[in-house]
Amino acid sequence: MKLHGYFRSAAAYRVRIALNLKRLSAEHLPHHLRKGEQTAPDYLAINPQGLVPALEDDTGAALTQSLAIIEWLDETHPDPPLLPSDPLRRAKVRAFALAVACDIHPVQNLRVLARLRQLGLPEDKVTEWAAWANREGLAACEILVAGEPGPFCFGAAPTLADLCLVPQLANARRFGVDVSAYPRLLTAEAAAAKMKAFADAAPDRQPDAE
Amino acid sequence: MKLHGYFRSAAAYRVRIALNLKRLSAEHLPHHLRKGEQTAPDYLAINPQGLVPALEDDTGAALTQSLAIIEWLDETHPDPPLLPSDPLRRAKVRAFALAVACDIHPVQNLRVLARLRQLGLPEDKVTEWAAWANREGLAACEILVAGEPGPFCFGAAPTLADLCLVPQLANARRFGVDVSAYPRLLTAEAAAAKMKAFADAAPDRQPDAE
Repeated sequence: MKLHGYFRSAAAYRVRIALNLKRLSAEHLPHHLRKGEQTAPDYLAINPQGLVPALEDDTGAALTQSLAIIEWLDETHPDPPLLPSDPLRRAKVRAFALAVACDIHPVQNLRVLARLRQLGLPEDKVTEWAAWANREGLAACEILVAGEPGPFCFGAAPTLADLCLVPQLANARRFGVDVSAYPRLLTAEAAAAKMKAFADAAPDRQPDAE
Repeated sequence: MKLHGYFRSAAAYRVRIALNLKRLSAEHLPHHLRKGEQTAPDYLAINPQGLVPALEDDTGAALTQSLAIIEWLDETHPDPPLLPSDPLRRAKVRAFALAVACDIHPVQNLRVLARLRQLGLPEDKVTEWAAWANREGLAACEILVAGEPGPFCFGAAPTLADLCLVPQLANARRFGVDVSAYPRLLTAEAAAAKMKAFADAAPDRQPDAE
């Protein structure tokens, strides 16, 4: 398999964790987002959205969108599972993941922040925008897992929720968010940090890290 | 079941279509988003994100995030299926749905547009922002289904992809986007329009329509 990514992309980071948890190896192909490499014609032929990640499977089929890729990995390589077996519990885990992947991440990604700069927004206001998206979203996520058993978001083992949480907390800190307001989320992050699958997926461990 | 929604919410619209396709009835509880009713304490206890939709099942359990709700409906009421059975095909359908639900919709929803107004952006620039998010996303979606059999996004029957597409095209038109640039998407929309499940879910058919 080939994973098209970028060391700092939170969405690619999710997929790296999933591959590691499943003990699957992939060739990592970095695309430098700040240099616009994700809009090169060769890459657009793989992902028409011009976003990372994209995963090419062993037949050359291209998969896009991190959550679709992770669901596919979970369906084709079910051990260890990244979703509970009970439908209602699956819905809770997916809702948490989507709260991050829909309502935080795309509102503060490179594409949107670049657009805000084009509109003439000064850099401090751009950062405040990104911090706002993280604060508002993470505050809701803290409540979504408030009554859940730990130490991970939804119990004793990591799920899709933790795969979305850990990269997002890294983003939040980068934008100056005081994450101490989310103690339950930090408990999950601390549990994840002890696992090699999460540690090896961190941005600063990637070959294209700056 | 109880569906918390709003006639004009594209995310609630997706769930209405799913319920209709599954021939499931739900009590519709509207929350007027422009009046801020989604941030009332009673509703935040159901959905800490303060967004619609939320679905309460027959036991009173609350589900949030439209795609998580639809996956739950598909797992608990599999007929008709909203995802193909082959894992790679499922990934393609989910990627399309997520391209809409992550990269178009949250970038142009009420919450983000309100934030842009707070930053002092004039109304014509706010509309142009929303149109940009729709144009860029729908152009990629058009390519994602270019080689797929029709008339729906992924074949002869509607899937999760169509449930996301139809409400998004309605938004795109509202923001002045020339949707004739996406003929393959319009083919899928036309096929959907012939189905009562889609027609009955339209915003102007809801009890809270203005």
